[in-house]
Amino acid sequence: MEHPHRAGGPAEGERSPVAEIIAIGSELLTPQRLDTNSLFLTSQLNALGVAVTAKHVVGDDRARLASAIQTAVERSEYVFLSGGLGPTEDDVTREAAAAALGRTLEFSAAQEQILIQRFAQIRRPMAENNRRQVYLVAGAEALPNPHGTAPGQVCRTVRGALFLLPGPPREFKAMVADQVVPRLRAELPPRVIRVRSFRVTGMGESQLDALIAPVYSKYQNPSTTVLSSLGDLWVNLYAQCDTEAEAEALLREVGDPIAELLGDRVYSTCADDTLELVVGRLLRERKATVATAESCTGGLVAARLTEYAGSSDFFVASFVTYSDAQKQSLLGVPREMIAQHTAVSEPVAKAMCVAAQQKTGATYALSTTGYAGPEGGTEENPVGTVFIGLATPSAAHVTKLIYGMDRARIRTLAVQTALDLLRRELLAL
Amino acid sequence: MEHPHRAGGPAEGERSPVAEIIAIGSELLTPQRLDTNSLFLTSQLNALGVAVTAKHVVGDDRARLASAIQTAVERSEYVFLSGGLGPTEDDVTREAAAAALGRTLEFSAAQEQILIQRFAQIRRPMAENNRRQVYLVAGAEALPNPHGTAPGQVCRTVRGALFLLPGPPREFKAMVADQVVPRLRAELPPRVIRVRSFRVTGMGESQLDALIAPVYSKYQNPSTTVLSSLGDLWVNLYAQCDTEAEAEALLREVGDPIAELLGDRVYSTCADDTLELVVGRLLRERKATVATAESCTGGLVAARLTEYAGSSDFFVASFVTYSDAQKQSLLGVPREMIAQHTAVSEPVAKAMCVAAQQKTGATYALSTTGYAGPEGGTEENPVGTVFIGLATPSAAHVTKLIYGMDRARIRTLAVQTALDLLRRELLAL
Repeated sequence: MEHPHRAGGPAEGERSPVAEIIAIGSELLTPQRLDTNSLFLTSQLNALGVAVTAKHVVGDDRARLASAIQTAVERSEYVFLSGGLGPTEDDVTREAAAAALGRTLEFSAAQEQILIQRFAQIRRPMAENNRRQVYLVAGAEALPNPHGTAPGQVCRTVRGALFLLPGPPREFKAMVADQVVPRLRAELPPRVIRVRSFRVTGMGESQLDALIAPVYSKYQNPSTTVLSSLGDLWVNLYAQCDTEAEAEALLREVGDPIAELLGDRVYSTCADDTLELVVGRLLRERKATVATAESCTGGLVAARLTEYAGSSDFFVASFVTYSDAQKQSLLGVPREMIAQHTAVSEPVAKAMCVAAQQKTGATYALSTTGYAGPEGGTEENPVGTVFIGLATPSAAHVTKLIYGMDRARIRTLAVQTALDLLRRELLAL
Repeated sequence: MEHPHRAGGPAEGERSPVAEIIAIGSELLTPQRLDTNSLFLTSQLNALGVAVTAKHVVGDDRARLASAIQTAVERSEYVFLSGGLGPTEDDVTREAAAAALGRTLEFSAAQEQILIQRFAQIRRPMAENNRRQVYLVAGAEALPNPHGTAPGQVCRTVRGALFLLPGPPREFKAMVADQVVPRLRAELPPRVIRVRSFRVTGMGESQLDALIAPVYSKYQNPSTTVLSSLGDLWVNLYAQCDTEAEAEALLREVGDPIAELLGDRVYSTCADDTLELVVGRLLRERKATVATAESCTGGLVAARLTEYAGSSDFFVASFVTYSDAQKQSLLGVPREMIAQHTAVSEPVAKAMCVAAQQKTGATYALSTTGYAGPEGGTEENPVGTVFIGLATPSAAHVTKLIYGMDRARIRTLAVQTALDLLRRELLAL
């Protein structure tokens, strides 16, 4: 279940102004390319209280583009075009925008002068086709482009405005930041936006949603999003109000009951935290260290623990012992124990974490042993069974989990669970 | 190189069938997320001779989505929806598709049975809201989804077909490959399509493109795509012809000079191979084994080597020794060596791989030690410096690399380079 539940912008019911973004270029319709300009623009628009309600990618096809622009300006206050402002025949954005608005294109002598100066500055001859770039949609205001040859344009429309912006990301970003945002800020009502985040592990997305949807779904403001990747969930509440106090009050009203429902499954309320960052921080605060002894996770627990700079403060060492022989020789797991219980068993998981702890002198040690599949497994412990051991200064516990999934997901979830077991131990939960 | 090289599909002037893709989900309209499903689908459609003429992202808004679907099915033969098939109130794709086609939604008892069995299999209770997922657009055919709870659907339209596909990439990809492609192949005019692939490592994308573009850019058929992720490149040539012999001849004409130019940087000509699969296969064929001793890569080399089932045939064990003390105690790296050369040095990398080889009895051992940053490094060995050791039955070599990048990319590239060094050793390159 990968999909979340509610857009980050203001709720549409309020009918705040909304935006659509159209990226232009046949190369954006190939298997290799994605429009990424829209991400930066979306973040800037959301901060101004404008939600993006649709994004489109259209090829270098004038008629198709004109029709897409026309539909968009009819239903959305702000429409942004990116790309297709270059000097070649394939660059059809100016013509399509003029056609969509029923206007003509007009030669701008002022823009021509700017372009001539620009080419003089970079000491390159201006090609004849660059003159295509100094035509403006009738009534449009030109937006300076210090990073390229194509000026942007903004045309007032019945509902709001249509922006023509250059496609190259550097030019696009600068024009959004320097030209678009100040113009929108001047015409939009001032709003305060506050966010409250919960990073959650130990439950699935549908389980989380069943738990908290009864709370958040009653509110359009704050709006709620739930993002999820395997074993990791991210709940964000966005409040948009006239004052900071109002926004904070709304976030308490909706966020406090959610916090209560989620309880200690919330591993952080910082949007940018990850589980390994939180675990590392807890270890560092306690001047504690960790080691791992991994079988089915093949080094992934260690890799997560060393993901961030400074992990040498708390991460000591790891053993990846894949075979029975290596469990014996590197970790001293007794041969008879493996013979009696198999390598995927509670006693072996316990012996592994205790050995890692003792051999490295770490405060804590995590171990994993399981059947990641697709082969292996027994009647009692089928594929997907993972034993996770945790040695603490006073004891060693083993948790048995069964994941009904494929190899990659079993490994990922086992790593996440191991890290969460350590987090809970460190917080005495 | 941000621009791609050639669209795979036929030119639009021919008016072969065309496709539009609509990704659904308010989260895809936030600054954090992009629709990436469309890339895989586009590559599959292009290979069938179908060009994508527009892509859209629409939020979880039934009316807006219905209108987008209606416009798309009116002008394009194939329309693909991804996402919004989940069990919650926000999942509006089924309703919107029915509304756009002027049909009703019908409860499918057969699909309900499949869902009940699926939940039994994964040993989780089925929530009441999962029942929303077994409604089909009237007249639609259900498409099985072995990886998730939402069945796909395909509805015939006046011009062609409308596909409802799940949003999670794993489910989406499998359904496109297993359900969509065979159906389209059956109804599209037969074309012989042959693909020739090169999986490449050890060079950057722009370097690769400068090398091979002079060859492939002279041809529209075969069309060429270059996909890249960090340290891993993927060149595909697609030939579309009337006969198999013609297609094979074209692939030889263009592919042979490319193969020559790329030389032994090609690690596989199987599209689905990965570097770790190739390395594992080479080890298995030679009845050889491998161990690792990792510092800056923190277990990631071991994790890659154990990514696939059956890796216990050749992967023995790994030591992740992050601190100087652990390099001494677990691997026996002499304290004086570290004092004299620092832990990030050629002698320490060599001592680490040799120790891993000796302690585990593996045929080969890889080691990594480096400054992944952002802190650390010396004048001689700045952040980004990584020493990679490889112990073979007869000797131990160390390779020094300097990557001018951030921590995550340094780690990823170091892992890729380590695996490639082992591949080259195994092939005596």
